[in-house]
Amino acid sequence: MAGRFLRRAGPDEIIRKLTAKAVFERNLIADGDRVLIAVSGGKDSTTLAWALSAIRPALKRRCELEALHISSDFCSCCKKAFLSEKLRSWGIPFTDLFVPVIGRLKPGRKMNCYWCSTQRRAELLKYAVDHSFNKIALGHHLDDIIETFFMNLTEKGELSAMPVKLGYRKYPVTLIRPLGYIEETQVIACAEKLGIAASACSCPYGINSRRGDARKNLAVLTGGSGNVKRRILAALSSGKNDLLEEG
Amino acid sequence: MAGRFLRRAGPDEIIRKLTAKAVFERNLIADGDRVLIAVSGGKDSTTLAWALSAIRPALKRRCELEALHISSDFCSCCKKAFLSEKLRSWGIPFTDLFVPVIGRLKPGRKMNCYWCSTQRRAELLKYAVDHSFNKIALGHHLDDIIETFFMNLTEKGELSAMPVKLGYRKYPVTLIRPLGYIEETQVIACAEKLGIAASACSCPYGINSRRGDARKNLAVLTGGSGNVKRRILAALSSGKNDLLEEG
Repeated sequence: MAGRFLRRAGPDEIIRKLTAKAVFERNLIADGDRVLIAVSGGKDSTTLAWALSAIRPALKRRCELEALHISSDFCSCCKKAFLSEKLRSWGIPFTDLFVPVIGRLKPGRKMNCYWCSTQRRAELLKYAVDHSFNKIALGHHLDDIIETFFMNLTEKGELSAMPVKLGYRKYPVTLIRPLGYIEETQVIACAEKLGIAASACSCPYGINSRRGDARKNLAVLTGGSGNVKRRILAALSSGKNDLLEEG
Repeated sequence: MAGRFLRRAGPDEIIRKLTAKAVFERNLIADGDRVLIAVSGGKDSTTLAWALSAIRPALKRRCELEALHISSDFCSCCKKAFLSEKLRSWGIPFTDLFVPVIGRLKPGRKMNCYWCSTQRRAELLKYAVDHSFNKIALGHHLDDIIETFFMNLTEKGELSAMPVKLGYRKYPVTLIRPLGYIEETQVIACAEKLGIAASACSCPYGINSRRGDARKNLAVLTGGSGNVKRRILAALSSGKNDLLEEG
């Protein structure tokens, strides 16, 4: 990592450089790709959309970028007009898809984060396949990847992470996470500079507490150090099987 | 793991069963092996010596057990007579080898844990080879293994652990860690029951602070839960390359 450059660079420049690094190193976007960006309206996925539009000229690959927002029946706060306008200014067409998540709950069942995210992921995949997208870009960053690694380690007893590139066997689609090399603090700084930090759509069912615990553990283990996080990231690719690529 | 049995069993019985489980599952001791047990006089290695003597009849394998203690020029507190007598009562011959660690320091160099342990490990290997031992048994337990995993992850950027079985390429010797499935609290409980908990030989240069930090991090991450530690242990063997066996 070009340490000296990054120490002097602005927050948006850091995101641009590290997104390009991940895309080139992991070959996340190929010539002719149709990339569907999943945008929640939050800082991570909005920053991702901006970063992909910003690096597109340097990629020198023909690729199409579009954004999909999945609305649900308990999502009314989202500043969709703001999001749509931002995406338009970055040259990214925007679609809003309504999925009645609560309406799909079977009688007697309670809403939970796992079930809801499964429903939304299935709709995202179906939309991508139906509209001939071969890549889906998600806004997860380095902290998300490491947290998932620790959750899988301590809860599932598995040595596995959230991959930067994940090919599906059943669908002609590959998931990519172009912000995978970037710390959350760096994403936040960029989102603030771009004026998109406060447009998140929050869920009334609250945050996932298991992930909250994992986040606290990660803070203890790394002491908040970006260098430690990058060493963990390097470790995830150091074995015979690279935990950052699947499928 | 036979959970119900272990909840009712005494601390010495738990150590016996889990040591036998590791030895059988990992094939740590084969017929005809000559096993050199490295004993510091501390709770871990003394418990290991007892455990190997206790499971020997059930192994149904001809194997020889001997113990080696490495004394150094700053080791004067060690209760060697007590240790020697305990080992004799378990049928394990005992040898005390003097290594002048301070005397080997080059002018201007300070003592440190890494250098000292390298010196002692080299002497241990040399003694084993010179006396035709093909296995060296070390007293590291589950907490040591997981701590090493986290230290390698966060400091070296490597996905590697302290293996339960490690074959050397350069020497006709294999390192084994038969207490690798056992939590430190279980070792302590057994050592207390056997009356060997207080005979440790402490080093005047203090404990290794990096390992101390790793121990604190481990406590946060696992919440002290044995089940979480065992899930991490399972994870270390879950990938394409088993991190618990090398060489």
